[in-house]
Amino acid sequence: MAIVRQTLVYQGSGGPFEGVIAYEDEVTTARPGVLVLPNVLGQKEADNVHAENLAKLGYVALAADVYGQGKRTQHGPDAGIYMNQLNADRALLRDRLEASLEALASFGNVDPGKLAAIGFCFGGKCVLDMARSGLPILGGVSFHGVYDQPDYFTVSPIKAKLLVCHGWEDPIAPPEKTVALAQELTESGADWQIHAYGHAGHAFTDQDRKTSTVPGVVYEPKADRRSWQAMTNFLEEVFA
Amino acid sequence: MAIVRQTLVYQGSGGPFEGVIAYEDEVTTARPGVLVLPNVLGQKEADNVHAENLAKLGYVALAADVYGQGKRTQHGPDAGIYMNQLNADRALLRDRLEASLEALASFGNVDPGKLAAIGFCFGGKCVLDMARSGLPILGGVSFHGVYDQPDYFTVSPIKAKLLVCHGWEDPIAPPEKTVALAQELTESGADWQIHAYGHAGHAFTDQDRKTSTVPGVVYEPKADRRSWQAMTNFLEEVFA
Repeated sequence: MAIVRQTLVYQGSGGPFEGVIAYEDEVTTARPGVLVLPNVLGQKEADNVHAENLAKLGYVALAADVYGQGKRTQHGPDAGIYMNQLNADRALLRDRLEASLEALASFGNVDPGKLAAIGFCFGGKCVLDMARSGLPILGGVSFHGVYDQPDYFTVSPIKAKLLVCHGWEDPIAPPEKTVALAQELTESGADWQIHAYGHAGHAFTDQDRKTSTVPGVVYEPKADRRSWQAMTNFLEEVFA
Repeated sequence: MAIVRQTLVYQGSGGPFEGVIAYEDEVTTARPGVLVLPNVLGQKEADNVHAENLAKLGYVALAADVYGQGKRTQHGPDAGIYMNQLNADRALLRDRLEASLEALASFGNVDPGKLAAIGFCFGGKCVLDMARSGLPILGGVSFHGVYDQPDYFTVSPIKAKLLVCHGWEDPIAPPEKTVALAQELTESGADWQIHAYGHAGHAFTDQDRKTSTVPGVVYEPKADRRSWQAMTNFLEEVFA
């Protein structure tokens, strides 16, 4: 058995989009599908590795693209140019998330009734927005996500189960924003968990941030390992 | 292989104390030891069941007694009589926790270098106090615990890893007390996690509370199952 990676170009508003889908090559039965939503930089190798790791767990995973083919950034002053456009148009973001989910759901050997999403940083916000907007995922996992609500009307109850993996020292989500998220998800009727990790900040899963000098934005191996374990348990639960 | 239950009477300030220890009968090598700290009612069958379930995971587990032999209560107006005495004398509580840990550590087939503690409600406070007072546990798990700090000088750094499983709607620990615990544990240098569960309150593991009519104090099966899973992973980590 081996893991296959395959480039997947799909359509949607502002597309085409280019993602990478990963799966076990000997799978012949329908498998749950997991969308991987990238951080601020957009679709990249780190997301493909996450997709491969999800494939090793028995899922078909699409490291998605919500910016558009070729639209990627690097750390630096322009890192957020594409993200900022979508933060300013959350309805467009929702449409692109839906297009990404449909690309996954319609891929061979994916069970369209068993879908989930995980995401990192801005991708964590994408996961929350998928749940808030009622896209048909059974579960979502946010890793050091961003918690501000969209400006459109969100569903209630939120049907997707949610696991929010949170670095307590994340400067983007200080305690009051985390408490506000808990309040929002409670009011929305979501089945939610927040796992807070001490001495971890933003980007705690991001191996490119091992030498970060931005306060509170740095890789933290314990939180990385524990949150992946929590996600593994969570996906087993939502797909059971 | 079968699980053995054995009454264990041990000494300490205000003792004797009477607990129940559980272990696999065919164990011949030293195993990690886990203390189980009861809720407000004191040592009882539910704690013995937890000890048995820990024994099934490969540990030797002592469902401890910190009130004294025969000192047990029932739900009702007098439920807290023994707990209140220890809440008023946290140093005495610490001494009894130490005596309980020593009783476990010196039991046959327990590796005294691999100890941990779990606790429920008041027992969650006991776990935190063990860590705060520097008792030699590698890890501690609080289930719907109580977070007020003791009046004695606590160690820094706290060496025990801590997992706090928390019902977000717990009326004993509203968000500001949970945030304060996170702050305390951060300042103490503890390696900590708080897992918050939406739509769960106090006593979410307590099967005797399935029909509770006290607002926010009720069994919640999802949080019960998820917190036990988190504990299982956590104990694997701390004993690795």
